[in-house]
Amino acid sequence: MRKVVVLGIGATSINEHWQFSLRELAGEAGLAAITDAGISSVDSVFIGNMMSGSANHQQQLGSYIGDWLGLKYKEAVRIEAACSSSAAAFRAALIAVASGEVDSALAIGVEKMTDSPSGEITAELATASDADWEADQGVSFVALNALVMQRYLHEYSWKHDDFAGFSINAHNNAMHNPLARFHSTLTLETYRKAHVVADPINIFDASPMGDGAAAILIVAEDAIHSTTKRLVRVLGSGAATDSIAVHGRKDPLWLSAAEKSVKQAFAQAGLEPKDINLFEYHDAFTIMAALSLEACGFAERGQGPRLALDGDILPSGRIPVATRGGLKARGHPVGATGMYQIFEVIQQLRGEAGLNQIENARIGMSQNIGGSGSNIITHIFGQI
Amino acid sequence: MRKVVVLGIGATSINEHWQFSLRELAGEAGLAAITDAGISSVDSVFIGNMMSGSANHQQQLGSYIGDWLGLKYKEAVRIEAACSSSAAAFRAALIAVASGEVDSALAIGVEKMTDSPSGEITAELATASDADWEADQGVSFVALNALVMQRYLHEYSWKHDDFAGFSINAHNNAMHNPLARFHSTLTLETYRKAHVVADPINIFDASPMGDGAAAILIVAEDAIHSTTKRLVRVLGSGAATDSIAVHGRKDPLWLSAAEKSVKQAFAQAGLEPKDINLFEYHDAFTIMAALSLEACGFAERGQGPRLALDGDILPSGRIPVATRGGLKARGHPVGATGMYQIFEVIQQLRGEAGLNQIENARIGMSQNIGGSGSNIITHIFGQI
Repeated sequence: MRKVVVLGIGATSINEHWQFSLRELAGEAGLAAITDAGISSVDSVFIGNMMSGSANHQQQLGSYIGDWLGLKYKEAVRIEAACSSSAAAFRAALIAVASGEVDSALAIGVEKMTDSPSGEITAELATASDADWEADQGVSFVALNALVMQRYLHEYSWKHDDFAGFSINAHNNAMHNPLARFHSTLTLETYRKAHVVADPINIFDASPMGDGAAAILIVAEDAIHSTTKRLVRVLGSGAATDSIAVHGRKDPLWLSAAEKSVKQAFAQAGLEPKDINLFEYHDAFTIMAALSLEACGFAERGQGPRLALDGDILPSGRIPVATRGGLKARGHPVGATGMYQIFEVIQQLRGEAGLNQIENARIGMSQNIGGSGSNIITHIFGQI
Repeated sequence: MRKVVVLGIGATSINEHWQFSLRELAGEAGLAAITDAGISSVDSVFIGNMMSGSANHQQQLGSYIGDWLGLKYKEAVRIEAACSSSAAAFRAALIAVASGEVDSALAIGVEKMTDSPSGEITAELATASDADWEADQGVSFVALNALVMQRYLHEYSWKHDDFAGFSINAHNNAMHNPLARFHSTLTLETYRKAHVVADPINIFDASPMGDGAAAILIVAEDAIHSTTKRLVRVLGSGAATDSIAVHGRKDPLWLSAAEKSVKQAFAQAGLEPKDINLFEYHDAFTIMAALSLEACGFAERGQGPRLALDGDILPSGRIPVATRGGLKARGHPVGATGMYQIFEVIQQLRGEAGLNQIENARIGMSQNIGGSGSNIITHIFGQI
């Protein structure tokens, strides 16, 4: 397969964008990536989105957004894998370019959640779980994560406080990200006193929804003639699933799909965990942050919170995470989140992360988690 | 890229399957394809589906169906391109295998429309058009097609009767397809007297919705060691879009996306229209049948109905279409339809089409149309 490089990136801020339609958000990010790449068109468009059919009464986002971007007649489809929709869309774009079927592709993640006509975002989110055996029993997404976290606290003897570091680090990093949903720091005391959503998860363990779009333009390395950009190559990609219902897993405290997808990505890249300079992980809930770090080989089983307590995840630490705020503070427009993660990794590897810049960042990883761990996709990027 | 062959196919009947869930339908088709292929597993799963999020309150169909099929831990995603979702899913599977990223893939199209909890299938279907500038103005999908057909009748001086042959041929062919939604022949007189849905479209110009699933299992040709199946190779694939709204097109009576996608597929295959022995076209409405035949080079512009009047589309004709009933009589479970089309082409090329068998069928083509022509994907298959 051909080598693939990132030529352009773009993103909107994450907020309640009531004044912008779905296509305007996607268009802003997509045009920014095209402008950043300095090219006039692409061969294919891949849209990552979870809930536009129900939340915005608009499907067929490939044609809808390709048309709006002036990319009429180009191939364009939407990929859906719940919260991992965007990493899935990026992976489809990657394989299309790597295969030689097309020379360039624009992957856009977009989600518009805050002014849904249906107004039932909790119900929309629950469509990522098992409709028959989870959602229809009244178990919301935060409740599923609360069950997992409760069991984790019991099994490995952690206290709720031990998870505060994930959230504090995210909020600190978001302070310097102009696109982030939140710009406020967090103290341990505030974390402790926060409203509980579903015991033991409080509002600072959970990430906020929002509207936003991010875009990545990739091309075959052999098709580039000249560019002024610092080029970043896609080194590895891996995707795996697990049972859609949490109760169907061998071990609900272990993300098998994360382990499998990261192994694939490491094998393709010829790398291992110690080579990763920063990790944009999927901290939809603090428990997911811990489980992701463990499954990816950055912490021992059951020891994820140790990395937060020891400062390993800080910008200056062994494995910096959520360097621009993560899902927790940059925000989590579900189907778009995976593209924000890649956008941020590329910013770091290009040296464009401003006050969030990780020193000597040469290799970065992103991991997008769909459902309660049922669909997990990992990518590794490196400076050329 | 590697050559790719079809190793297994499977499908359910199309009907009101109130007793089966979405995963049971997809599971039946998927397991049939796996059994037909004579292998025990696949590397990746690609699901084509349009409306499960709203109609069935279930997204994340990759994990949902992969899990149900016992393909846990495998890569699995859903592709959505409205009514062309299944051809888009097949194309993603094709590129994944051709690229070498995986050695095998299972593409499943599934749709369950008849017992939607929301009960508003007309509104669900309208999400494939432009929400702001078509659907929200009250223009349903059949109304959009009626506007196009009305203009076509005016522009090229056809009568409504001239379209009857498309529907009569479809109903005749479905008589011998046990999986078809309808098993009743149609006369010109019945066609003439039928209820009008949106003038000039009557119920026999329009295809019926339904529940159903079809699956195609593909593998890299170089990975096959032995099989007793007659092998069919994917010769060409092409995908293109057009403006999502009909009023955005240069010419609403010409399917530019069909023309572009079929040219890509012909170029890959090194073939031209006269080489095609049968064509599973997208006769969601009789006007779409005519427009597809024209854009693909089987008829002159404005002369599609001539092929129905002259018998060219009959099983014994120059370009047999809808050989197992087409969308009109086999049925149109929207996001699954494209996989049924491919299933039927493979049946023909394997010589497994029973009383519908087209003599000397060596090369077949399928074309799946999403929206009112905004996303069109064409595949060409040939006997090895």
